Amino acid sequence: MPSIPKGTRDFQPAEMSGRNYIFDTVKRIFKNFGFLPIETPSMENIETLTGKYGDEGDKLIFRILNSGDFVESGKLKNISGEEFNSKKLSSLISEKALRYDLTVPFARYVVMHRNDIVFPFKRYQIQPVWRADRPQKGRFREFYQCDIDVIGSDSLLNEIELLQVIEKVFSSLNLKVTIKLNNRKILFGLAEAIGASEHFTQITMALDKLEKVGEKAVIEELGQRGIKPDAVEKMAAFLRFISNEKISSDLGILSSDNHSKSRLEYLTNIFNSPSIGVKGLEEMNFLIKHIKSFKFDFAEIEFDPTLARGLDYYTGSIFEVIAKDAEMGSLCGGGRYDNLTGVFGLPGISGVGISFGADRIYEVLKTLNLIPENTDRCVSAMLVNFGEAELEFALSLLAQLREAGIGAELYPDNAKLKKQFAYADAGKIPFVLMAGRDEILEKKVSVKNMQNGEQVTITEDEVSEYIINASHQF
Amino acid sequence: MPSIPKGTRDFQPAEMSGRNYIFDTVKRIFKNFGFLPIETPSMENIETLTGKYGDEGDKLIFRILNSGDFVESGKLKNISGEEFNSKKLSSLISEKALRYDLTVPFARYVVMHRNDIVFPFKRYQIQPVWRADRPQKGRFREFYQCDIDVIGSDSLLNEIELLQVIEKVFSSLNLKVTIKLNNRKILFGLAEAIGASEHFTQITMALDKLEKVGEKAVIEELGQRGIKPDAVEKMAAFLRFISNEKISSDLGILSSDNHSKSRLEYLTNIFNSPSIGVKGLEEMNFLIKHIKSFKFDFAEIEFDPTLARGLDYYTGSIFEVIAKDAEMGSLCGGGRYDNLTGVFGLPGISGVGISFGADRIYEVLKTLNLIPENTDRCVSAMLVNFGEAELEFALSLLAQLREAGIGAELYPDNAKLKKQFAYADAGKIPFVLMAGRDEILEKKVSVKNMQNGEQVTITEDEVSEYIINASHQF
Repeated sequence: MPSIPKGTRDFQPAEMSGRNYIFDTVKRIFKNFGFLPIETPSMENIETLTGKYGDEGDKLIFRILNSGDFVESGKLKNISGEEFNSKKLSSLISEKALRYDLTVPFARYVVMHRNDIVFPFKRYQIQPVWRADRPQKGRFREFYQCDIDVIGSDSLLNEIELLQVIEKVFSSLNLKVTIKLNNRKILFGLAEAIGASEHFTQITMALDKLEKVGEKAVIEELGQRGIKPDAVEKMAAFLRFISNEKISSDLGILSSDNHSKSRLEYLTNIFNSPSIGVKGLEEMNFLIKHIKSFKFDFAEIEFDPTLARGLDYYTGSIFEVIAKDAEMGSLCGGGRYDNLTGVFGLPGISGVGISFGADRIYEVLKTLNLIPENTDRCVSAMLVNFGEAELEFALSLLAQLREAGIGAELYPDNAKLKKQFAYADAGKIPFVLMAGRDEILEKKVSVKNMQNGEQVTITEDEVSEYIINASHQF
Repeated sequence: MPSIPKGTRDFQPAEMSGRNYIFDTVKRIFKNFGFLPIETPSMENIETLTGKYGDEGDKLIFRILNSGDFVESGKLKNISGEEFNSKKLSSLISEKALRYDLTVPFARYVVMHRNDIVFPFKRYQIQPVWRADRPQKGRFREFYQCDIDVIGSDSLLNEIELLQVIEKVFSSLNLKVTIKLNNRKILFGLAEAIGASEHFTQITMALDKLEKVGEKAVIEELGQRGIKPDAVEKMAAFLRFISNEKISSDLGILSSDNHSKSRLEYLTNIFNSPSIGVKGLEEMNFLIKHIKSFKFDFAEIEFDPTLARGLDYYTGSIFEVIAKDAEMGSLCGGGRYDNLTGVFGLPGISGVGISFGADRIYEVLKTLNLIPENTDRCVSAMLVNFGEAELEFALSLLAQLREAGIGAELYPDNAKLKKQFAYADAGKIPFVLMAGRDEILEKKVSVKNMQNGEQVTITEDEVSEYIINASHQF
């Protein structure tokens, strides 16, 4: 029995229908908010990707073996002894890799096509990405990202647009979510306030695990990473404040709004002014103030100063969306990057973007029974195949139906009726048409309604109209 | 300046619109003919792919480097001296590869999911494939295939369905094409008739190049491949007959119908009966007889007994579609395979399928100016950004428009008016809304129609209705 690589999947028609429901929904909303589609190649030159996702990320990039005979070409001649390791070998025999996300290829795209682009550029991109991660629930080695980014504008109104897109997507999918909001500048202010700004990266990396490992483990890790005890103690106090607040919120004592407010106050008190941290708080206040113009029915927005997001290139707002009624990690995430195009030679262009994880959203919708029945049924009629003698009549009937715009199929084999009906049944085809020898003599067709079992015999000329009228009744 | 791997492409919004026009068209027609969507992973286990596309094909498969440290793991320890070649090294450090087409992964899919499938199974699949081919005009290293196959039925009615799908697709795209039709059984009959049936594979390989290299070169190649002189002479006579006929046809002396007829007669005369060749002629006669039930306005069907198709797995009908008014090789091709699932452990399941090359179709449509203007404009209004003081009014107007279902954007930055209008212009946004200090005081909005330059000032409450009514006029 053949198999497929671990962490990858086949999608059968029923799954495709559910997945297309998600893709169609996000695409419609992206377009409606003025985002334009682009696509980039699955393969990028290796130097485009490496160094953008941290050391851990680099290890998860799938590399593509050069084609042609690399041994004969002499490229490997100098490999021997000590120097012979996987990294060196890889670099000699592989120059391309599969994309790891859509953001870095997008930055590369912006730089390459800068002369064709009118900024601010709002693009959407829906394509698969590949990561050599250990496969687990909701985590695959090939999965789709649905990205939107606005590049070439540092206005916080773009963040507000993204928040509205999130609300619109999840309300269209009928899924309640929480949008966690933070700002890298606030995180930096926090590092500064506890007196450990030189350990900013370590602090974000530790905080990024908070949800997974808990408060105590994060505090321990900070100590191990060489942060001074009094700084660690200040961070511990902050985390205690957050978790106490969380309890009040879970008990319903604190509303999500007051929640955000009290956190902003706490930080305002411990930050020096002026500072990067205070700038971050101002940005957060701007967002919280102006999102009030819009309805957020399905997405609850919460300022979470412990939200870190793993990726190094974020410099401002960061977002993460989780489902309220299912355990499935992040369904959507993103943030602002002030200089992602800089590494490709075009500095000073700020952008902000988010990425919807279609695969996880699908899993959540499935769990919560929120995927609608396949509604794009396209075939309305199946003609029974009675064999060679009845073929000409069947084909002309088929042509007549199609001319009338009716999706129709003729069962290809002269199989037993039971088998032919089972096929129509499995395909949820609503009408089965039968024209055997007797019917053909009278130029008639028997039409069976597969939903109520009723059967009528009508003339050949009436069939298209009959199907069209009867279909309206569903 | 960054770059992308050779043979790959970025697609900008305008190109995406043209490409989506093609994808949407084929998808709509596939569904209307009762084909169901599936998707398979980009990566397959290497043994799924190798040996299916001939030696040349195997060389063009992109392999993926194993992740992890393959040197440390000891896998490469035994490599030394003579045995150390690219093929051996590849097999030690690479177990997966990118799919080369959609047919072989589909066969693998059918075998793996046989218990979930109701046969005959009609599937469509639209996904990219990768080939390490030398890039050239209309040939890329990553390109999309749009496949349909019917598997689990050996009825020739399936071939007739595929021919109709081809007609429907190209008539929807307004593109005139020729469908060349042949049958591998006829090719075998031909090899038999000239007394060289043991050289069947070589004959098909040589004929496959006829279009490219011409009659003389094909005849020469047959001699070089060890086919006896009298057999070669018989083949030469056959090719002369075909090319003379082609001339009569080009001159309008022979209609495409009579064309096919005279070729069938020629072959009937030289084939022994009963034989595989005669069976092939019968199948061809069946198709030619029964397609008459249907209209073929954009696709002209021609029986071409020199059509060979490179792939080994075809056993019956073969198809190739070329544009009438452009030079671009095959736009669509396919055929019947009697045992493709056999290599995966499920013998005796016949299938037939075709593959549309979206990239080449796009190139042809572009050359012939047949791609419609982007019709899925989704944003109807852009709000000018006048800065912080006017922001609240602008945001509430934006919310009002969106509530009314109108695609709208607020320009994110307080940039010069000229720049903001240039953005609306580039995005073909039909209305620009302006609410500066004066308008806000009176709760009014100025609406500029970007197509005729007219400008009106209306109250805030009237804006949504105004845009909706005015949009109907386009």
